[in-house]
Amino acid sequence: MGIRNRKAYLDADHQFTVVEEEVPTPKPNEVLVRIKANGICGSDIHFYLEGRLGNFIVEQPYVPGHESSGVIEAVGSEVKGLTIGDHVVIEPGIPCGGCGYCKSGRYNLCPDVVFLSAPPVNGTFCDYMTIRHDMVFRIPTTLSFEEAALVEPVAVGIHAVNRARFNLGATAIIIGAGPIGLLTAQAFKAAGGGKAICVDFNESRLELAKKLGIDGVARPMDESLEGAADVVFETAGAKTATSSTFKYCRPGGCVVQVGWPGGNIVDMDIATFLEKELDYVAVNRYANAFPVAIQWICEGKINVKDLITIYYSLDQIGQAFAYTSQHPNEVVKTVVVNA
Amino acid sequence: MGIRNRKAYLDADHQFTVVEEEVPTPKPNEVLVRIKANGICGSDIHFYLEGRLGNFIVEQPYVPGHESSGVIEAVGSEVKGLTIGDHVVIEPGIPCGGCGYCKSGRYNLCPDVVFLSAPPVNGTFCDYMTIRHDMVFRIPTTLSFEEAALVEPVAVGIHAVNRARFNLGATAIIIGAGPIGLLTAQAFKAAGGGKAICVDFNESRLELAKKLGIDGVARPMDESLEGAADVVFETAGAKTATSSTFKYCRPGGCVVQVGWPGGNIVDMDIATFLEKELDYVAVNRYANAFPVAIQWICEGKINVKDLITIYYSLDQIGQAFAYTSQHPNEVVKTVVVNA
Amino acid sequence: MGIRNRKAYLDADHQFTVVEEEVPTPKPNEVLVRIKANGICGSDIHFYLEGRLGNFIVEQPYVPGHESSGVIEAVGSEVKGLTIGDHVVIEPGIPCGGCGYCKSGRYNLCPDVVFLSAPPVNGTFCDYMTIRHDMVFRIPTTLSFEEAALVEPVAVGIHAVNRARFNLGATAIIIGAGPIGLLTAQAFKAAGGGKAICVDFNESRLELAKKLGIDGVARPMDESLEGAADVVFETAGAKTATSSTFKYCRPGGCVVQVGWPGGNIVDMDIATFLEKELDYVAVNRYANAFPVAIQWICEGKINVKDLITIYYSLDQIGQAFAYTSQHPNEVVKTVVVNA
Amino acid sequence: MGIRNRKAYLDADHQFTVVEEEVPTPKPNEVLVRIKANGICGSDIHFYLEGRLGNFIVEQPYVPGHESSGVIEAVGSEVKGLTIGDHVVIEPGIPCGGCGYCKSGRYNLCPDVVFLSAPPVNGTFCDYMTIRHDMVFRIPTTLSFEEAALVEPVAVGIHAVNRARFNLGATAIIIGAGPIGLLTAQAFKAAGGGKAICVDFNESRLELAKKLGIDGVARPMDESLEGAADVVFETAGAKTATSSTFKYCRPGGCVVQVGWPGGNIVDMDIATFLEKELDYVAVNRYANAFPVAIQWICEGKINVKDLITIYYSLDQIGQAFAYTSQHPNEVVKTVVVNA
Repeated sequence: MGIRNRKAYLDADHQFTVVEEEVPTPKPNEVLVRIKANGICGSDIHFYLEGRLGNFIVEQPYVPGHESSGVIEAVGSEVKGLTIGDHVVIEPGIPCGGCGYCKSGRYNLCPDVVFLSAPPVNGTFCDYMTIRHDMVFRIPTTLSFEEAALVEPVAVGIHAVNRARFNLGATAIIIGAGPIGLLTAQAFKAAGGGKAICVDFNESRLELAKKLGIDGVARPMDESLEGAADVVFETAGAKTATSSTFKYCRPGGCVVQVGWPGGNIVDMDIATFLEKELDYVAVNRYANAFPVAIQWICEGKINVKDLITIYYSLDQIGQAFAYTSQHPNEVVKTVVVNA
Repeated sequence: MGIRNRKAYLDADHQFTVVEEEVPTPKPNEVLVRIKANGICGSDIHFYLEGRLGNFIVEQPYVPGHESSGVIEAVGSEVKGLTIGDHVVIEPGIPCGGCGYCKSGRYNLCPDVVFLSAPPVNGTFCDYMTIRHDMVFRIPTTLSFEEAALVEPVAVGIHAVNRARFNLGATAIIIGAGPIGLLTAQAFKAAGGGKAICVDFNESRLELAKKLGIDGVARPMDESLEGAADVVFETAGAKTATSSTFKYCRPGGCVVQVGWPGGNIVDMDIATFLEKELDYVAVNRYANAFPVAIQWICEGKINVKDLITIYYSLDQIGQAFAYTSQHPNEVVKTVVVNA
Repeated sequence: MGIRNRKAYLDADHQFTVVEEEVPTPKPNEVLVRIKANGICGSDIHFYLEGRLGNFIVEQPYVPGHESSGVIEAVGSEVKGLTIGDHVVIEPGIPCGGCGYCKSGRYNLCPDVVFLSAPPVNGTFCDYMTIRHDMVFRIPTTLSFEEAALVEPVAVGIHAVNRARFNLGATAIIIGAGPIGLLTAQAFKAAGGGKAICVDFNESRLELAKKLGIDGVARPMDESLEGAADVVFETAGAKTATSSTFKYCRPGGCVVQVGWPGGNIVDMDIATFLEKELDYVAVNRYANAFPVAIQWICEGKINVKDLITIYYSLDQIGQAFAYTSQHPNEVVKTVVVNA
Repeated sequence: MGIRNRKAYLDADHQFTVVEEEVPTPKPNEVLVRIKANGICGSDIHFYLEGRLGNFIVEQPYVPGHESSGVIEAVGSEVKGLTIGDHVVIEPGIPCGGCGYCKSGRYNLCPDVVFLSAPPVNGTFCDYMTIRHDMVFRIPTTLSFEEAALVEPVAVGIHAVNRARFNLGATAIIIGAGPIGLLTAQAFKAAGGGKAICVDFNESRLELAKKLGIDGVARPMDESLEGAADVVFETAGAKTATSSTFKYCRPGGCVVQVGWPGGNIVDMDIATFLEKELDYVAVNRYANAFPVAIQWICEGKINVKDLITIYYSLDQIGQAFAYTSQHPNEVVKTVVVNA
């Protein structure tokens, strides 16, 4: 074709190598997407710094990235409803479609799911990618590709809200004011929740929370918050934070675990859990959340733009990862554009 | 009246004193119940042995007992639908009826609930008791008072099943084959569940489980059970058992915590919880469970009779508590009859 | 006391007589409320014009009114959490608190419910009223009594939304742009719904809908709306409108019946109902909806002020009913203030 | 191959022609099933007698049948978990797998669903059929093929129960004691329901209901049943029966519409619907119901064997349809075996 298809490979030594490869051809049920922008996820940074995350290990160079937007460049013969030129986002966890999980609405738990950017599967830091048609969602052309790259983390927030059980007008405490916390808080408010209070040590993130319309902010261990929440979202991924969730919740409330605490084992106060008769629910990515994520960003119910701290081009991907990983307190979200 | 009303007071020195008091008169919205039988609950034994349970402390002699059945002897002027001579069971947690919890169906979480036998509130080891009319449920005269005394623990099992989220035909692992475990297992099967597997160290309890129609039994730490359950009920109240629940569960499943582990803090494997995207729900007593508990005992769907190991009379209550507390492996349930 | 307590009695000849009576004394579990404002409900107008509604008949003069706000003037000896001077609204359907419906969260279905203003029970068009403490909800002093009088119809809209089953961001068609339709549409949007489209013949009501932020308006029988809704709320109370609801709904959607169609029997297209596998749910008043109704009015999520077309004083109640009943197309909501 | 593959084509003149065709070859994601038995569904009879059902018309000869069981004879290259020789049943509505309905657990509403035996799509009255692997469910070899042919109508009953909202131990009235009614009643009892009462004019079907363990039987219009049910299942598919459902239900109950009344429009008592605040839910086939249907037949919770009135061989298919259509009161279920 003569068209450049850059792919940014990360190796186990924290190095990126951008190589050019053939543009792939979509199968009959696939589309070809020209990638326009990617967000850097915390999991990408884990692979960059540590070469592993959970059971996934960087054993050979692979392409990270799964928060992406782009334009459809070609359409397989069986694909209906998508056209060349459509602006789209990609849902990066591709389920089998035939198992019991897929058929009952929890396809994120499909045992055969293929997740883009979980090594050795390549992700979206590239110029062209083929993808099964049902994992691609149209966005309006009025939405910028940079903002659209954040549809994926918004979907996490929406799934967290869908997994929560709360009454209309409920009060939420969101622990952690990083990207997931700030998006979950906004999703909660858009979903019929009432007051949302973000808890974090980081003052600048709490300032950002206020700017985004979050109703209240607090530092961890604020005793006035004990029993104050109908629903608690743990998004900080810290052991101490996870241990504190039951305390923040009122009797009959719900705690939603979104963040992955370092290490597997956390001390949980089961006596409080029982006395308050709580629900405690886990969140593993998302299912059926992309359409409403797109809708709510477009309608202004979820502000993603103000989460983007800094932009890089794809050729600067090494710098993008270096800066992001070295400035965890300053950077909320980094977006890499395929200029 | 000249009628004997024995009341069995327990003090902080593990001693019972049976005294005779006036028969109380029901208020306009109360009934007077002549108690016929009481089960001894594990919580009664805790107060007997240790003088406390959680925040409740035996500071002065009080009357234990909250698993009771009896006959209505008098009816207050405002009471409809209950008649002298009715055989009944008493639901022992009396909620206020006006707060948000009471009005939304979770009256067990009412902050003003009065629980019979939680010191200093007197319980049901007596001959006569007045009680608000809505806490009394009619039973058929064909049901023995001794079996009816077990409606209360059956209600715990039914509430556990109501709190669980599972599909029809699901497989359950029930950790702990004591009274609550055996009743929860039976309630699960009656509620549309499929196979129920009881896990315990105690061989005689596993034998009893099989006699009750439980589909399978196993010892703790049986690795073949890893990921085998759609729903796990923890009823053993042990830290190690509680820590193991997530392991037994398949992705997308539900863990129900019924037992109170000794000590408040338990090590929980949050990584497994997240990876499997589980629901973890707590059970604190019951709400709206007595009618179906009665129905299912009467229909033979839940066998309570075979759980009763030994019977005592009310005058032998000291011996009943002594024997029960000294033979935890032999006794499943002790029933005290008001002969 | 020497304090005036006007009560406005309506008779079967469409006449109001305002008489002065003793100020009542609250029982131990009651409060005394000085009424400040009342909305006129469509059901009040039915009794005014026709002397009956359903099985309720005006056989002797009675006091209408059940959309009320006021100030607490006295507090019974057992009442906690309410103080003289508190601004409040009254929930007018008083359930027994002890039956299975009351205990399971559906107290609006209590067979012994007493509904203020359902003849022969007196309603709230008076100066003073005693009421059980749990039927009274505090409002901030920053909320006007006139707006607060509309908490009751807002509660209907919220209950309708709670009864509906829809996904976040769903599209709703609301048939009927009267008070209940306009409040339901706003409640739907506040509850995580997406686009709301109001359908009515009345142009001025559609203009009001737009002013209130409703996303779209349409006339009945607009064929472009066929299959356009995830959820349909019927609030017009008309047979033709009720018959059309299934048509507006997409497969798998939900239809919520709020309005009472004149006559009991309506032609329903059961083939469409089955083919689309719809849910069709009825709404009978509300339960547990007052707190969030107050919250959302105060937060500006539900605009009630712009629904109030005209104000009268209590002494003008006859004129208020005459004007309201004679101008059904012009009047959205009439509020009567106790000046 | 030289192997006979009979296919039984039905034309618009009520005639069957059995022809022999090539045995098809499975695609990579398909299996080849040798059909062993088929039930005759009421919809098959509609096409036989009237040449149409709803929008589906017999314009050219087609193969009816969608209640089938068989043995896997060949497996496509991509198929996992199924082996030659496995006994299986076929779920006959093949969804696309990629749309919003498919991904959210309601694949029966997929707009691109292909339903075997809905003309012009061929059904299962043949010897060999290829089918996508995820539409095939293994059965134990201990289950007869004749009983397994009834897994499909059992799935309808299970889906009806899944769509219903009821509390444990609830009472159901099932209108219509045909195959779907009798299977729904059994499914309800297995799913945690309490008493099930079947209503029908046909005495022999009511006798069969009793034999199957149904708790009570009644004739239509039995006034003692008014308000007696927590949940009503309409399976008769008659207008009068559908109109009566709300009357049978208690306040707060649920009505499940399974049967398709002749004609589209039915008179429904919306005033009763509203006063009782009912839920009314439609059932369109099933989703995710085959595994539990198989499980419950094998465990004896659902008796299908006693529903089979008469057996024919595939070569007698014309006689099978003639007899079944001429004896609607005598025949509950006809099974055709591929001898």
